[in-house]
Amino acid sequence: MEKPNALYAQSGGVTAVINASASGVIEAARLHADKIGTVYAARNGIIGALTEDLIDTSFESSADIKALRHTPSGAFGSCRHKLGSLEKDRPQYERLIEVFSAHNIKYFFYNGGGDSQDTAYKVSQFSKTLGYPITCIGIPKTIDNDLPFTDNSPGFGSVAKYVAVSIREAAMDLAAMALTSTKVFVLEVMGRHAGWIAAASGLACEKEGDAPHIILFPEIPFAPEAFLKRVQECVQRFGYCAIVVSEGLKNQDGTFLSESGLVDAFGHKQLGGVAPLIAKLTKEKLGYKYHYAISDYLQRSARHIASKTDVDQAYALGKAAVEFALAGKNAVMPIIVRQPGKTYQWKIGEAPLEKVANIEVNLPRDYISTDGFSITQKARAYLSPLIEGEDYPPYKNGLPQYVTLRNVAVEKKSEAVFEV
Amino acid sequence: MEKPNALYAQSGGVTAVINASASGVIEAARLHADKIGTVYAARNGIIGALTEDLIDTSFESSADIKALRHTPSGAFGSCRHKLGSLEKDRPQYERLIEVFSAHNIKYFFYNGGGDSQDTAYKVSQFSKTLGYPITCIGIPKTIDNDLPFTDNSPGFGSVAKYVAVSIREAAMDLAAMALTSTKVFVLEVMGRHAGWIAAASGLACEKEGDAPHIILFPEIPFAPEAFLKRVQECVQRFGYCAIVVSEGLKNQDGTFLSESGLVDAFGHKQLGGVAPLIAKLTKEKLGYKYHYAISDYLQRSARHIASKTDVDQAYALGKAAVEFALAGKNAVMPIIVRQPGKTYQWKIGEAPLEKVANIEVNLPRDYISTDGFSITQKARAYLSPLIEGEDYPPYKNGLPQYVTLRNVAVEKKSEAVFEV
Repeated sequence: MEKPNALYAQSGGVTAVINASASGVIEAARLHADKIGTVYAARNGIIGALTEDLIDTSFESSADIKALRHTPSGAFGSCRHKLGSLEKDRPQYERLIEVFSAHNIKYFFYNGGGDSQDTAYKVSQFSKTLGYPITCIGIPKTIDNDLPFTDNSPGFGSVAKYVAVSIREAAMDLAAMALTSTKVFVLEVMGRHAGWIAAASGLACEKEGDAPHIILFPEIPFAPEAFLKRVQECVQRFGYCAIVVSEGLKNQDGTFLSESGLVDAFGHKQLGGVAPLIAKLTKEKLGYKYHYAISDYLQRSARHIASKTDVDQAYALGKAAVEFALAGKNAVMPIIVRQPGKTYQWKIGEAPLEKVANIEVNLPRDYISTDGFSITQKARAYLSPLIEGEDYPPYKNGLPQYVTLRNVAVEKKSEAVFEV
Repeated sequence: MEKPNALYAQSGGVTAVINASASGVIEAARLHADKIGTVYAARNGIIGALTEDLIDTSFESSADIKALRHTPSGAFGSCRHKLGSLEKDRPQYERLIEVFSAHNIKYFFYNGGGDSQDTAYKVSQFSKTLGYPITCIGIPKTIDNDLPFTDNSPGFGSVAKYVAVSIREAAMDLAAMALTSTKVFVLEVMGRHAGWIAAASGLACEKEGDAPHIILFPEIPFAPEAFLKRVQECVQRFGYCAIVVSEGLKNQDGTFLSESGLVDAFGHKQLGGVAPLIAKLTKEKLGYKYHYAISDYLQRSARHIASKTDVDQAYALGKAAVEFALAGKNAVMPIIVRQPGKTYQWKIGEAPLEKVANIEVNLPRDYISTDGFSITQKARAYLSPLIEGEDYPPYKNGLPQYVTLRNVAVEKKSEAVFEV
């Protein structure tokens, strides 16, 4: 009997460490070449699986698969394409099984967030009823850190480190210039629905007066008066004010500030980010000169300053996914389990895919200070270990050397052309 | 006779490596304690000198002075305060000499750009006429890379490395997402008057198809049609388009795009950066989904990814300044001299302060490709060595450990209170 093959796919927004999970999957599978035939990767995530656009990873050298560990972004491409319910998207589920069957794929490793885990779960159940059972293992990934069960989501720790490092550095610049020039600096960070990333910037504040002086969370409706009062106090006490704002900051009525045009001098909607709005407000009301930065993709692709903890965990989760599959597990997702004790220790656990998709983990209110402008000791204790350690990529000519895979296409076996 | 003292001051926008120059000055002076008494630092640059707000650096430990080498921003504070001509600002020059005299300061080390070197030169000349001659040595610094004589300006190499690394990483993210999501990414970088920093991002492009695909220089008036054509070509060929735009990008009439509101849907001025304008233009005309980042202070404070070449040169220039002074030189600035040969080698040379202020080095036209969208091989040969090498700061709890000096104030000796 032909050895069963495996399919690995990356889903949703990519991160600095999702390729470390890919490296873990492929290296572990290669160690078990007696049980797993070829590891295919879907080009551009689930779309590649649906359109039978597969990559044969066996053409990649060991060195290149190893190099994935230090390479940001998604090496096989990702996509934003959500499969809905079995009722609504049944043809897509059927098509997946068709492609899997055509390539003797019995293991499906889906590396993504809650929606992807839901898809993997449905594939595992649906395939049974079609008489072609598939082992589906989810691998957690999202910078949003909103997956349940796992201590944290791979990708988040590296963004966390990036924003904490960045606000520390930028605020030092601000401090040196404040007497005669800029007094307010605003850094906009990702996290449209939850303030995990904004909260992580608070790690840079280790003692009274350290930046960030103010964090604006999506969980705390924006109160301009209290905010301006705090800015003024900071400038009076420290000479300047360093602010981190989540892109998801909301007005009291629940609308996004970035869509509300709060301080446009002409009364028109500002179409840009929220950082300029916040910065201009301090200028308009308090007269302070400002600067602002919008880190956008830089924050989630910054492999050059990735958290070693994050890289190690992403790799371990990829490896564990293969081990789970070979151990006969199905419809589960390996997770990070934080061990009790003073120093951070973690091990791999598991969670049922069925449950992963239905829970979104929000930033707990007691991670945010009572006044809503900073993080608590509890948040710090949770977040701090996640940015621990550096894991620098190799450099050549002053630039990080990231791998580009060959991504050799697999010959299509299915006659049907599937349009997504 | 009492040993003469020295004064060190930081001027203008700070950088990731200006403190490395400070470290070089103070460590070199400490090696010559027989000839130089106390090294004072002016708090907040020349304003501290004018208001007699001096810092006694002898209270700082050797370890802390060493740590300046890996600490971004200006450890003693900087300022934007330009001294004009001797005729116009004569009281300020007189006041400087008064403060120098009160503290037996015979050596003045001024760490800044062209204007600061001009000030240092005038102080050296003026002090002679007042019968209190002072040795004035300039130390070059500016991320703008527009100082003459020196191969490059300390601070520039680290910004150059930051922008090249950042566009490489962000473009990889873009590449993975482009099929179903973002197709255009725009990174805005500093350089209001010259495209040195924008040019440096081009180092990330090592082969056909590498990002950045388009660089928009302040030297090349923006031509929307040619730009949009190129964006479309990139998306068609590579699936996406990664763009770097200088904050100083100008319209055909010479006005800044950031002030022109080119694509505001309501026909009103956009008050933000130029990146959103460029990004929205591609959406409006070509329908592409976009993301944009504005790196602002992050780029010039990013000591975590500083260029080792830059750090080494900044330190060496600080050290050389002291050695020049002790060798009896005056009104000069140590510079970096590039040696002929295939591998980059440099030595310290010198330039007369009198001439430094009158020349601004612009990005040569032959560093920009004929079409105006990328850099030439000549630019690459010049820029590449400047980002060479990594020089990571130490980390604790996942964060870079930057030093904060004690900055002990010196007792004022002058009765007069000087208002700046």
